[in-house]
Amino acid sequence: MISVQEAVNIIQSNLAKPEIIEVSFKEAVGKVLAEPISADRDFPPFDRVMMDGIAINYDRYNSGQSMFNVEATQLAGAPRLTLRQADNCLEVMTGAMLPKGVDTVIRYEDVTIVGNKAVVNDIEIFKGQNIHNQGQDIEKDHIIIKPSTLITPAEIGVITTVGKEKVKVYKPLKFAIISTGDELVPVEDEPKEYQIRQSNSHVFKSSLDQIGMDAQVFHIVDDKETLKGRIKDILEEFDALILSGGVSKGKSDFVPEVLEELGVTKHFHRVAQRPGKPFWFGTVKNKSVFALPGNPVSTFLCFNKYILPWLRKSYRLEEKIQLAQLEEDFSFKPDLTYFLQVKVNNEKGMLKATPVKGQGSGDLANLVLADGFIELPPDKYDFKAGELFPLIPYRRLD
Amino acid sequence: MISVQEAVNIIQSNLAKPEIIEVSFKEAVGKVLAEPISADRDFPPFDRVMMDGIAINYDRYNSGQSMFNVEATQLAGAPRLTLRQADNCLEVMTGAMLPKGVDTVIRYEDVTIVGNKAVVNDIEIFKGQNIHNQGQDIEKDHIIIKPSTLITPAEIGVITTVGKEKVKVYKPLKFAIISTGDELVPVEDEPKEYQIRQSNSHVFKSSLDQIGMDAQVFHIVDDKETLKGRIKDILEEFDALILSGGVSKGKSDFVPEVLEELGVTKHFHRVAQRPGKPFWFGTVKNKSVFALPGNPVSTFLCFNKYILPWLRKSYRLEEKIQLAQLEEDFSFKPDLTYFLQVKVNNEKGMLKATPVKGQGSGDLANLVLADGFIELPPDKYDFKAGELFPLIPYRRLD
Repeated sequence: MISVQEAVNIIQSNLAKPEIIEVSFKEAVGKVLAEPISADRDFPPFDRVMMDGIAINYDRYNSGQSMFNVEATQLAGAPRLTLRQADNCLEVMTGAMLPKGVDTVIRYEDVTIVGNKAVVNDIEIFKGQNIHNQGQDIEKDHIIIKPSTLITPAEIGVITTVGKEKVKVYKPLKFAIISTGDELVPVEDEPKEYQIRQSNSHVFKSSLDQIGMDAQVFHIVDDKETLKGRIKDILEEFDALILSGGVSKGKSDFVPEVLEELGVTKHFHRVAQRPGKPFWFGTVKNKSVFALPGNPVSTFLCFNKYILPWLRKSYRLEEKIQLAQLEEDFSFKPDLTYFLQVKVNNEKGMLKATPVKGQGSGDLANLVLADGFIELPPDKYDFKAGELFPLIPYRRLD
Repeated sequence: MISVQEAVNIIQSNLAKPEIIEVSFKEAVGKVLAEPISADRDFPPFDRVMMDGIAINYDRYNSGQSMFNVEATQLAGAPRLTLRQADNCLEVMTGAMLPKGVDTVIRYEDVTIVGNKAVVNDIEIFKGQNIHNQGQDIEKDHIIIKPSTLITPAEIGVITTVGKEKVKVYKPLKFAIISTGDELVPVEDEPKEYQIRQSNSHVFKSSLDQIGMDAQVFHIVDDKETLKGRIKDILEEFDALILSGGVSKGKSDFVPEVLEELGVTKHFHRVAQRPGKPFWFGTVKNKSVFALPGNPVSTFLCFNKYILPWLRKSYRLEEKIQLAQLEEDFSFKPDLTYFLQVKVNNEKGMLKATPVKGQGSGDLANLVLADGFIELPPDKYDFKAGELFPLIPYRRLD
């Protein structure tokens, strides 16, 4: 039996290597960028008017002139005008190019316009005010977004602004999600007294769908030869496998031996943790095989603690450790890392984790009351309110 | 000009009323539940074996018997067996029904099995151990998930377990996203010197796509009659409109007057904030019309500060206020609420917000460096490191 940290290290030294593909910016959100995004020109691309108002030649104003004849209007989206007579002004609109021959913009609120004459109110004017200068934000060819960035709507803003109609991103991995266990029936079936419905597969599938992975669900009966034949085919076709059930010491727990017979190298079986002790992990030809225990909470913990971070690292995303403060004393005796289900609140900026009381590791109802797990190390029995522990959130906290 | 809080109050007293529809559980993640989810039977549905091992009659053990003949094996997913002879035992598998005539499970680690005889090791045994009792987690008909819950993978676990093949959820709203401004060209075009590419619409569209809304993008030229005709048609067909551009005092800023001429009741125009001051909001026939300024950061702030919370409240989701601690002193003089772009780090459980220095409100590049905005109130000029302010995150912090 290995420790949680050893399990993390082993899993993360067997990363997937997603291919690079090109997609339209319209399908890019949620994907990870595989190229840098650079400025295709200066931003702003021209000296840009920042306020609706008039544009003048500051020197004229500074030498005492306060009334200016309006020559014309410079609209946004129109070619650049030129002031013909230095003591005149031009009306200018937000987003427009600053016309030639002017250098200062005074907003409408600070001028009085009657007919075609604009009189500057008695206020302070600075040379160059209300102009967003060419290249002030970013110069041409400067890298705005680095590769290995998760594309969110903010990145879409940049990608579209620089005209990247297609972007290189890492391709979704193909996951096979396999449940085993003869007690399981499909969601749409009425279970017999001794049966329960499949749920783990759908939890994985919805989690992977949400982050844009390509996941397919299978159920295989607890028959060793059937299991072996089906998994053999699945291993050919998929990039990664997530199994649930069949990894304990039971008579129908064929998963570990079937995987090894199929040439999957076992890296570990059993992790010093609760829930999720019987977790098995192996690889074959750069494909990772995660064989998780069957009970819903164990499986959910393993998915969030091991598989998602492995996936983020495979996609070269930076992993941020979140800590949360335990709100109540808690005891756990066995020499195992304990993953405690918690409700998380932001109290004056501090993340506070309150244990959600549960009955057993099979208790799904707790998962919907909690926001995540906190990780309590095995070298202590008593965990005190106020202590900090790593948080594995599985919902947004806002 | 109204305050930020007044703007929030007005917007949130004009909520959308999404219809209720039924979807497959396979499409339910990310949607908001519109019915309670109850237990269709007890959970566990039967006294459930929690460990692979043997099941005995505790009284026999307690009266001194430590060797038991194995009668048979109770597998998971098999009908319930009955112990025929009270001084025998049955092998039992995790997830199986507890057979009749036994009341205690001893795991394989704690017994020695030779042939068909199992000898209990010298350990402490408790009556009823390793059994997850029927109804222990949840009793039949108990509500496990309340309506108005965002469906995440954890909820999918419950929904599938109770056999809800179809669930009632709130229907996505139909959003029209409209950009105006003659300086804007499509992403795929090469802009002329005085033009820039459309980006706001794609930011909105990708944000709304991510949360499962139904959004369509339009661009309309700065011609009053064209604008009026197009918006009239759009108002017929969509539930909510988000416009960007055309709300300032410029000569081509026809949006507010066009909306009013089309019968949209103006609730406010201009909010005492930076960025985003020219924000206009109105309603017509229970449709909300958000007319935002054209510059990318203003628009992004307004979307995250006003539209997303309005949407969450329309979908009856609880709003959690997140606070973050300012990491550096910051000054802002005008009597406006200032939304400061910040990078957020979890430091010993505390959310710390470090200002991301920017050049101007049009600076898109900052958005990709920051994680959110903090809201600095208008009644102060100096904001000190260590003070707490509301956080509007636009990325996951983990």
